[in-house]
Amino acid sequence: MSVEVSRGLENVIIKTTGLTYIDGINGILRYRGYDINDLVNYASYEELIHLMLYGELPNRQQLNQIKGIINESFEVPEQVISTIFSMPRNCDAIGMMETAFGILASIYDPKWNRATNKELAVQIIAKTATITANIYRAKEGLKPKIPEPSESYAESFLAATFGKKPTQEEIKAMDASLILYTDHEVPASTTAALVASSTLSDMYSCIVAALAALKGPLHGGAAEEAFKQFVEIGSVENADKWFEEKIIKGKSRLMGFGHRVYKTYDPRAKIFKTLAKSFAEKNENVKKYYEIAERIEKLGVDTFGSKHIYPNTDFYSGIVFYALGFPIYMFTSLFALSRVLGWLAHIIEYVEEQHRLIRPRALYIGPEKREFKPIELR
Amino acid sequence: MSVEVSRGLENVIIKTTGLTYIDGINGILRYRGYDINDLVNYASYEELIHLMLYGELPNRQQLNQIKGIINESFEVPEQVISTIFSMPRNCDAIGMMETAFGILASIYDPKWNRATNKELAVQIIAKTATITANIYRAKEGLKPKIPEPSESYAESFLAATFGKKPTQEEIKAMDASLILYTDHEVPASTTAALVASSTLSDMYSCIVAALAALKGPLHGGAAEEAFKQFVEIGSVENADKWFEEKIIKGKSRLMGFGHRVYKTYDPRAKIFKTLAKSFAEKNENVKKYYEIAERIEKLGVDTFGSKHIYPNTDFYSGIVFYALGFPIYMFTSLFALSRVLGWLAHIIEYVEEQHRLIRPRALYIGPEKREFKPIELR
Repeated sequence: MSVEVSRGLENVIIKTTGLTYIDGINGILRYRGYDINDLVNYASYEELIHLMLYGELPNRQQLNQIKGIINESFEVPEQVISTIFSMPRNCDAIGMMETAFGILASIYDPKWNRATNKELAVQIIAKTATITANIYRAKEGLKPKIPEPSESYAESFLAATFGKKPTQEEIKAMDASLILYTDHEVPASTTAALVASSTLSDMYSCIVAALAALKGPLHGGAAEEAFKQFVEIGSVENADKWFEEKIIKGKSRLMGFGHRVYKTYDPRAKIFKTLAKSFAEKNENVKKYYEIAERIEKLGVDTFGSKHIYPNTDFYSGIVFYALGFPIYMFTSLFALSRVLGWLAHIIEYVEEQHRLIRPRALYIGPEKREFKPIELR
Repeated sequence: MSVEVSRGLENVIIKTTGLTYIDGINGILRYRGYDINDLVNYASYEELIHLMLYGELPNRQQLNQIKGIINESFEVPEQVISTIFSMPRNCDAIGMMETAFGILASIYDPKWNRATNKELAVQIIAKTATITANIYRAKEGLKPKIPEPSESYAESFLAATFGKKPTQEEIKAMDASLILYTDHEVPASTTAALVASSTLSDMYSCIVAALAALKGPLHGGAAEEAFKQFVEIGSVENADKWFEEKIIKGKSRLMGFGHRVYKTYDPRAKIFKTLAKSFAEKNENVKKYYEIAERIEKLGVDTFGSKHIYPNTDFYSGIVFYALGFPIYMFTSLFALSRVLGWLAHIIEYVEEQHRLIRPRALYIGPEKREFKPIELR
């Protein structure tokens, strides 16, 4: 055993993967070899589900199979719905997702099985839409609503969430957002899922572990924090003053900027910006936040670009979520809704192809052997 | 970045610790410098709580403070109880614990704070007793029961679980079992908790992540599997035949034997054996399983001892749990009830003293850049 502590497991390679390729220097992101821009422009989220789980983009028949499983799997046990709706409305949304998946783990408790793992993953993705939509509905004081079968997962999810048929533009933006957040190698949430899967814990519990890690403000909360900045700034006229006071003089961290891997523009940030711009052209409130964000982006790049700190995926995504009608408290759950595919694809890859129990070591630096002293002598 | 994959994170040091020292060659286990035998013989679980969280064994006043916090903290929100009791009785007990902690994470969502972390940890330990007792009660079709204040955490827990005052011997054995399973460095469950804590996710969610990893049959289920062997064997007369057929000829793994760290007798196994023996002297059913276990132990050591494979902590612990009145399905939850202290002590040590976001890497071995093909051409 080496005696070097691998702090944060930085540069430790926990697994091999055929899923996600990141070139942080050149701002390239690919899923199974396909460029993120091509996937957002030409593929649907259902096609991506097949690509990530089965390795290839689906043909028409395979795509229909994926859609069929999704449309048949939105139902969840009654306890999931009743528990979500029994919670106080100010509850944390990711905590509620942990709870819902904990119930599924308790009731279903599925075993790992090569013959069924991938189909189960698709079922879990469908149920994630049901859970996410109903967390919103519970927190808004609405009645439960199970997503209904449709041509598109994004459409079924949006329709259940808001109780009305979404526009084509909304469906397309939701679909793009699902694709953009699908996977990003092995951040803390994926690592937590891998650790759970390494004990052969059931797939639902692996998602529970991932959610528990995502919940932390250093991981899942960035889109929320970035958008809150724009709300705080309030108007584009206030942007320069805010930036000067808060970021330059106050030395606060500019949220939605910088990434441990990307040293240039995060390619997802550019796509989210395009989507946000499109909504801004039709909606005055969105336009306000878009203009603030665009101004802050310029100030941020002028200030930090030379240090290789650029907008990341969370900088504009909140504006897209806002344009779709989501309150800020749902942003991290939307991240989870999308990332569940990445978590599942990684744990299936790990368990089926390279399984080994994850068991690091700790370096003991505490006291040498001590004699026990009775309490009277302490 | 090295290009060596650290499979299972074996020999990777994820943190330093002043908590647990293991000498696997000589079969030594110490918590903060105190030998496990001394702690079981002379300390109570409440003293161990103080030792693990605050670094030193408590004086009388400090011990009373710990007991006071515990006795005031057994209550849980009504949703925790109603959800546990709404689940089907055949639900997985660890999944139910994930659910209960998910609800606490949703409702309480506490922030990390040096001034309150340790007291919060003690409160969480108290609530774990409530949750564990009521999972048993729900699965047995009993009514909810919140643990009542007493001189001993073990006593409050047993009294709430079974609805009757436990004997002194039962309290002492429960206390010992809590101490024996309290910590064991950084196995998968503790690693999952650390990953969650590294994002500054709330303490309840860190426990959720740990439970999700513990749930896997390669981690938390060993006491259950070991005891099931004894049930299968059925009588001591059948032990040699079973061992010959199942283990020697059948090459099945002998459960409760062998450990990645210990290359000799696990010191905890010896203590659990003594406790099991004491119950066996008074109870014919316990005696039956004890005698089977003792015979299998001899056969196992004769066969595998030369390969440094010896009984581990799970070999005899199930017999103690059985003697206390617990059904097999509760064994892993009893592990969790005890280990929650280790999980909390590790994450507090990590966040307060050596915090860094845990973010390993994956080595991409998938396809090179591919051109997107429309679905008609696939």
